[in-house]
Amino acid sequence: MKLKEIGEFGWIDRIRGGCLIRQDTILKGIGDDAAVFFTLSDMATLVTTDLLVERVHFLKNATSAFNLGYKAMAMNLSDIAAMGGEPREAFVSIGIPQDCSIEYLDELYEGMKHLAAEHRVNILGGDTTGSKTDLILNITVVGTILPSEVLYRHAAQPGDAILSTGFLGNSRAGLHIILEGIPIDAPFLQKLVDAHLKPRPYVLEARFLASLGGVHAAIDVSDGLSSDLSHILKSSGVGAQLVAQKIPISENLKRFCARFSRDPLEYALSGGEDYTLLITVSPDREKTVREAYEKTFETPLFLIGWINDSQRLEMVDPSGALNEVTASGWDHFK
Amino acid sequence: MKLKEIGEFGWIDRIRGGCLIRQDTILKGIGDDAAVFFTLSDMATLVTTDLLVERVHFLKNATSAFNLGYKAMAMNLSDIAAMGGEPREAFVSIGIPQDCSIEYLDELYEGMKHLAAEHRVNILGGDTTGSKTDLILNITVVGTILPSEVLYRHAAQPGDAILSTGFLGNSRAGLHIILEGIPIDAPFLQKLVDAHLKPRPYVLEARFLASLGGVHAAIDVSDGLSSDLSHILKSSGVGAQLVAQKIPISENLKRFCARFSRDPLEYALSGGEDYTLLITVSPDREKTVREAYEKTFETPLFLIGWINDSQRLEMVDPSGALNEVTASGWDHFK
Repeated sequence: MKLKEIGEFGWIDRIRGGCLIRQDTILKGIGDDAAVFFTLSDMATLVTTDLLVERVHFLKNATSAFNLGYKAMAMNLSDIAAMGGEPREAFVSIGIPQDCSIEYLDELYEGMKHLAAEHRVNILGGDTTGSKTDLILNITVVGTILPSEVLYRHAAQPGDAILSTGFLGNSRAGLHIILEGIPIDAPFLQKLVDAHLKPRPYVLEARFLASLGGVHAAIDVSDGLSSDLSHILKSSGVGAQLVAQKIPISENLKRFCARFSRDPLEYALSGGEDYTLLITVSPDREKTVREAYEKTFETPLFLIGWINDSQRLEMVDPSGALNEVTASGWDHFK
Repeated sequence: MKLKEIGEFGWIDRIRGGCLIRQDTILKGIGDDAAVFFTLSDMATLVTTDLLVERVHFLKNATSAFNLGYKAMAMNLSDIAAMGGEPREAFVSIGIPQDCSIEYLDELYEGMKHLAAEHRVNILGGDTTGSKTDLILNITVVGTILPSEVLYRHAAQPGDAILSTGFLGNSRAGLHIILEGIPIDAPFLQKLVDAHLKPRPYVLEARFLASLGGVHAAIDVSDGLSSDLSHILKSSGVGAQLVAQKIPISENLKRFCARFSRDPLEYALSGGEDYTLLITVSPDREKTVREAYEKTFETPLFLIGWINDSQRLEMVDPSGALNEVTASGWDHFK
């Protein structure tokens, strides 16, 4: 079935179901010129927005519609998490090419709604329109946070420990498997592909960390460890020393790299879209924060290096040598 | 100059200037994973978002970059106005094809910033990315309003007067002049083109009307009078009777229609993108509201018909006959 058979307003009626999953504080969701809702008193408001364009950010035949919707929502939730915040309301703009079926779009919305509902995020509105060539998806998410708990990029301090909530480089390996058409003949390959297609945002973890005290700066790994950490360094006017042997590399990535003669460290440093959180924690709180995190989530919080006042990003390699790391993550225009 | 010469982050540094025009309540604008700000206490928050795609909503050679930016911002401010609200923060996502020059983008942002600054709206963030073919622009605007003053589509009541803040059909005539390549050999043709390319949002007027008391429902004319009024009727479960002779048609549109043998009423009813406000006002307040409005803004508030309980949209034509009006505005998929 094509959209023109049901029209723009038939379509809007179709997607409404499952959008509003938390009624409190909402005065109006989908169906007016703007959504109307209350923010929580004494809280600061967070807003993030991400634009995905077919053939730039995704290929329709390389992912399912469900996973595309899921990932688009995940990227935005991850941005709210990277501030330490709680995501609350989402707005979806979609530009739909004529040949796109309603069944495809239903699946896409299912993916978005599934992850939104998991985090109790409402879809309160958006814009639905046509597109000549490419499918276009822009999501805006509004979140909330206590002003004293915001984790800014500019708040890292010399002496801070640098920690990652998860493994790095998996998503990039998954992307290579997809782009190079490598047959998925083992479960570990599928897991790497899943890390790319269906990343999980560290929303609960971020709220926990922001409320602990002692966590200074945060960012999510969207462009790559070296690039995203560089944003913290530049914003904070500091430097950092990473320890190569401490950078968390999954067994799956190690197996992938062994089989295809790749360097896992290179994947971990410059591979993007892991959506793990990088945080910096004051040295006197580092042990407490790690222990509390590991007890609560039963998963490690990886210590990967330290902030210093050098203004440079360096790494101690396995031989003990100190090398400068260049920010080699993703730049959309280079 | 091309974007790849300065890169994504050079570009973000470039557009920062003129984005933050009101510092109070802002904790963080451009430059982190999300913007952080305070909303006003006891106020409800409004969010609207609009997606513009090249070759669907605009042709690059039919408008200037400045006017494109201006109009994209105007459409969003108009959506906040249509709720009676005050726009406060804007977020701009842009997908940029490789052949797009920095000079073009500078002009585009100038257009957005110009109108945003005029209404004291900050640009607090967004997303900048590539696009394979078409220029893509998605703007999200966050506004504020007293909960008791929100003008919902669903709030029209039988007996209400229906009023328009401005002339209808000008924008559609301007579009026809552009698309048909009609030479602009008279000022009235230029004015119609301007109405299409650089519509003005009725932001101050909306705030004034929402705070007066007695104004029930509102919508802005983006798809066309018949279509947008139908949204109010459907949402409110009511009908309406328009009076053909009262529908505000500008002298410019009359001259255009006379010269090109068109029906001005047809333009007024089904032409979109005028971005005038349609409001419904309780009968006992209609005269007071109109007089207060006209005294304040020194421009008429046009009475064009009445809400009734018929569930139909009808119009009294100049001969006195009553005809059903079909909602014939814009549907993006039909």
